[in-house]
Amino acid sequence: MKLVELKDTKELEPFKDCHVRFIHSENVSLAFWKIKANGVLPDHSHINEQVSVVTKGELELTINGVTKKILPGMVAIIPSNERHYAKAITDCELTDVFYPMREDYK
Amino acid sequence: MKLVELKDTKELEPFKDCHVRFIHSENVSLAFWKIKANGVLPDHSHINEQVSVVTKGELELTINGVTKKILPGMVAIIPSNERHYAKAITDCELTDVFYPMREDYK
Repeated sequence: MKLVELKDTKELEPFKDCHVRFIHSENVSLAFWKIKANGVLPDHSHINEQVSVVTKGELELTINGVTKKILPGMVAIIPSNERHYAKAITDCELTDVFYPMREDYK
Repeated sequence: MKLVELKDTKELEPFKDCHVRFIHSENVSLAFWKIKANGVLPDHSHINEQVSVVTKGELELTINGVTKKILPGMVAIIPSNERHYAKAITDCELTDVFYPMREDYK
Protein backbone atom coordinates (compact mmCIF):
# COMPACT_ATOMS: atom_id res chain seq x y z
CA MET A 1 0.00 0.00 0.00
CA LYS A 2 1.14 3.50 -0.76
CA LEU A 3 -0.26 6.43 1.20
CA VAL A 4 -0.12 9.87 -0.36
CA GLU A 5 -0.86 13.19 1.35
CA LEU A 6 -2.36 15.53 -1.20
CA LYS A 7 -0.57 18.50 0.38
CA ASP A 8 2.75 16.82 -0.46
CA THR A 9 1.95 16.71 -4.18
CA LYS A 10 2.75 19.54 -6.56
CA GLU A 11 -0.06 22.04 -7.09
CA LEU A 12 -0.41 23.16 -10.69
CA GLU A 13 -2.46 26.00 -12.20
CA PRO A 14 -2.75 24.94 -15.84
CA PHE A 15 -5.55 27.47 -16.39
CA LYS A 16 -6.25 30.73 -14.52
CA ASP A 17 -7.97 30.12 -11.15
CA CYS A 18 -7.94 26.35 -11.77
CA HIS A 19 -5.63 24.63 -9.28
CA VAL A 20 -5.01 20.90 -9.44
CA ARG A 21 -3.04 18.15 -7.71
CA PHE A 22 -2.55 14.78 -9.46
CA ILE A 23 -2.09 11.31 -8.03
CA HIS A 24 -1.13 8.45 -10.34
CA SER A 25 -1.52 4.76 -9.48
CA GLU A 26 -0.37 1.92 -11.70
CA ASN A 27 -3.41 2.26 -13.98
CA VAL A 28 -5.35 5.44 -13.31
CA SER A 29 -4.82 9.12 -12.55
CA LEU A 30 -6.86 11.16 -10.10
CA ALA A 31 -6.99 14.94 -10.38
CA PHE A 32 -8.13 17.01 -7.39
CA TRP A 33 -9.27 20.39 -8.67
CA LYS A 34 -10.05 23.59 -6.78
CA ILE A 35 -11.61 26.07 -9.18
CA LYS A 36 -12.62 29.61 -8.34
CA ALA A 37 -16.01 30.96 -9.44
CA ASN A 38 -15.89 31.74 -13.19
CA GLY A 39 -12.72 29.67 -13.65
CA VAL A 40 -12.74 27.85 -16.98
CA LEU A 41 -11.24 24.57 -18.17
CA PRO A 42 -11.11 25.37 -21.91
CA ASP A 43 -12.62 23.11 -24.56
CA HIS A 44 -10.37 20.07 -24.93
CA SER A 45 -10.33 16.34 -25.45
CA HIS A 46 -8.03 13.42 -24.62
CA ILE A 47 -7.89 9.71 -25.25
CA ASN A 48 -8.41 9.09 -21.52
CA GLU A 49 -11.89 8.21 -20.36
CA GLN A 50 -12.88 10.65 -17.57
CA VAL A 51 -15.20 10.31 -14.60
CA SER A 52 -15.87 13.62 -12.81
CA VAL A 53 -17.17 13.90 -9.26
CA VAL A 54 -18.10 17.35 -7.93
CA THR A 55 -17.49 17.45 -4.19
CA LYS A 56 -18.21 21.15 -3.49
CA GLY A 57 -19.96 23.96 -5.33
CA GLU A 58 -21.49 24.06 -8.80
CA LEU A 59 -19.90 23.46 -12.18
CA GLU A 60 -21.24 23.72 -15.72
CA LEU A 61 -20.04 21.06 -18.13
CA THR A 62 -20.55 21.48 -21.88
CA ILE A 63 -20.23 18.66 -24.38
CA ASN A 64 -21.31 18.84 -28.01
CA GLY A 65 -23.08 22.15 -27.33
CA VAL A 66 -25.13 20.73 -24.47
CA THR A 67 -24.53 22.33 -21.07
CA LYS A 68 -25.37 20.59 -17.80
CA LYS A 69 -25.02 21.80 -14.23
CA ILE A 70 -23.17 19.41 -11.94
CA LEU A 71 -23.53 19.50 -8.17
CA PRO A 72 -22.28 17.31 -5.32
CA GLY A 73 -23.99 13.93 -5.55
CA MET A 74 -23.66 13.91 -9.34
CA VAL A 75 -21.10 12.11 -11.45
CA ALA A 76 -20.29 12.78 -15.12
CA ILE A 77 -18.83 10.07 -17.36
CA ILE A 78 -17.00 11.53 -20.38
CA PRO A 79 -16.00 8.99 -23.03
CA SER A 80 -12.56 8.87 -24.61
CA ASN A 81 -11.88 11.68 -27.13
CA GLU A 82 -15.14 13.55 -26.42
CA ARG A 83 -14.54 17.33 -26.42
CA HIS A 84 -15.61 19.03 -23.20
CA TYR A 85 -15.52 22.42 -21.51
CA ALA A 86 -16.13 23.30 -17.87
CA LYS A 87 -16.94 26.53 -16.05
CA ALA A 88 -17.20 27.00 -12.29
CA ILE A 89 -20.46 28.70 -11.31
CA THR A 90 -19.28 29.00 -7.69
CA ASP A 91 -15.97 28.17 -6.06
CA CYS A 92 -15.91 24.42 -6.49
CA GLU A 93 -13.98 21.22 -5.92
CA LEU A 94 -13.90 18.40 -8.39
CA THR A 95 -12.23 14.99 -8.49
CA ASP A 96 -11.52 13.58 -11.95
CA VAL A 97 -10.59 9.93 -12.55
CA PHE A 98 -8.77 9.11 -15.80
CA TYR A 99 -8.11 5.80 -17.51
CA PRO A 100 -5.58 5.25 -18.88
CA MET A 101 -3.44 7.48 -16.68
CA ARG A 102 -2.68 11.04 -17.81
CA GLU A 103 0.90 10.65 -19.07
CA ASP A 104 0.82 14.37 -19.95
CA TYR A 105 0.55 15.24 -16.23
CA LYS A 106 3.08 12.73 -14.87
CA MET B 1 -21.54 12.34 -21.69
CA LYS B 2 -23.56 10.45 -19.15
CA LEU B 3 -24.71 12.15 -15.95
CA VAL B 4 -25.55 9.99 -12.97
CA GLU B 5 -27.23 11.10 -9.75
CA LEU B 6 -25.88 9.01 -6.92
CA LYS B 7 -29.29 9.00 -5.22
CA ASP B 8 -30.69 7.17 -8.27
CA THR B 9 -28.23 4.29 -7.88
CA LYS B 10 -28.91 1.26 -5.74
CA GLU B 11 -27.62 1.46 -2.18
CA LEU B 12 -26.09 -1.79 -0.94
CA GLU B 13 -25.03 -2.83 2.56
CA PRO B 14 -22.59 -5.67 1.85
CA PHE B 15 -21.28 -5.49 5.43
CA LYS B 16 -23.07 -4.24 8.57
CA ASP B 17 -23.11 -0.42 8.80
CA CYS B 18 -21.21 -0.18 5.50
CA HIS B 19 -23.42 1.39 2.81
CA VAL B 20 -22.22 1.78 -0.74
CA ARG B 21 -23.34 3.02 -4.14
CA PHE B 22 -21.44 2.00 -7.29
CA ILE B 23 -20.97 3.80 -10.59
CA HIS B 24 -19.36 1.97 -13.51
CA SER B 25 -17.87 3.68 -16.55
CA GLU B 26 -16.46 1.85 -19.56
CA ASN B 27 -13.19 1.10 -17.75
CA VAL B 28 -13.42 1.82 -14.04
CA SER B 29 -15.78 1.49 -11.09
CA LEU B 30 -16.27 4.08 -8.37
CA ALA B 31 -17.67 3.07 -4.98
CA PHE B 32 -19.13 5.74 -2.71
CA TRP B 33 -19.11 4.39 0.84
CA LYS B 34 -20.81 5.70 3.98
CA ILE B 35 -19.54 3.74 6.95
CA LYS B 36 -20.70 4.15 10.52
CA ALA B 37 -18.17 4.37 13.36
CA ASN B 38 -16.79 0.86 14.08
CA GLY B 39 -18.08 -0.46 10.74
CA VAL B 40 -15.68 -2.99 9.23
CA LEU B 41 -14.84 -3.97 5.66
CA PRO B 42 -13.50 -7.47 6.39
CA ASP B 43 -10.11 -8.66 5.20
CA HIS B 44 -10.32 -9.32 1.46
CA SER B 45 -8.48 -8.98 -1.82
CA HIS B 46 -9.37 -8.61 -5.51
CA ILE B 47 -7.57 -8.43 -8.80
CA ASN B 48 -8.70 -4.82 -9.18
CA GLU B 49 -6.22 -2.12 -8.31
CA GLN B 50 -7.87 0.23 -5.75
CA VAL B 51 -7.37 3.91 -5.01
CA SER B 52 -9.16 5.05 -1.82
CA VAL B 53 -9.99 8.66 -1.04
CA VAL B 54 -11.41 9.50 2.40
CA THR B 55 -13.72 12.50 2.10
CA LYS B 56 -15.10 12.63 5.67
CA GLY B 57 -14.08 11.16 9.03
CA GLU B 58 -11.31 8.76 9.92
CA LEU B 59 -10.63 5.25 8.72
CA GLU B 60 -8.01 2.66 9.67
CA LEU B 61 -6.62 0.61 6.81
CA THR B 62 -4.62 -2.54 7.51
CA ILE B 63 -2.44 -4.27 4.94
CA ASN B 64 0.06 -7.01 5.70
CA GLY B 65 -0.34 -6.38 9.44
CA VAL B 66 0.45 -2.68 9.10
CA THR B 67 -2.34 -0.30 10.15
CA LYS B 68 -2.50 3.30 8.96
CA LYS B 69 -5.02 6.01 9.78
CA ILE B 70 -6.50 7.74 6.74
CA LEU B 71 -8.06 11.17 6.90
CA PRO B 72 -9.46 13.59 4.32
CA GLY B 73 -6.58 14.85 2.18
CA MET B 74 -4.99 11.40 2.09
CA VAL B 75 -5.16 8.83 -0.67
CA ALA B 76 -4.30 5.11 -0.38
CA ILE B 77 -3.16 3.11 -3.40
CA ILE B 78 -3.75 -0.64 -2.94
CA PRO B 79 -2.14 -2.86 -5.58
CA SER B 80 -3.95 -5.70 -7.31
CA ASN B 81 -4.47 -8.79 -5.11
CA GLU B 82 -3.12 -7.16 -1.93
CA ARG B 83 -5.21 -8.23 1.08
CA HIS B 84 -6.69 -5.33 3.02
CA TYR B 85 -9.02 -4.60 5.91
CA ALA B 86 -10.70 -1.33 6.90
CA LYS B 87 -12.35 -0.08 10.07
CA ALA B 88 -14.16 3.23 10.52
CA ILE B 89 -12.90 5.13 13.56
CA THR B 90 -15.66 7.71 13.17
CA ASP B 91 -18.62 7.89 10.80
CA CYS B 92 -16.82 8.30 7.51
CA GLU B 93 -17.20 8.65 3.77
CA LEU B 94 -14.85 7.06 1.31
CA THR B 95 -14.60 6.98 -2.48
CA ASP B 96 -12.86 3.94 -3.98
CA VAL B 97 -11.72 3.79 -7.59
CA PHE B 98 -11.18 0.34 -9.12
CA TYR B 99 -9.44 -0.75 -12.30
CA PRO B 100 -10.48 -2.91 -13.98
CA MET B 101 -14.13 -2.38 -13.10
CA ARG B 102 -15.72 -4.47 -10.33
CA GLU B 103 -17.67 -7.02 -12.36
CA ASP B 104 -18.80 -8.55 -9.03
CA TYR B 105 -20.74 -5.36 -8.22
CA LYS B 106 -22.24 -4.70 -11.68
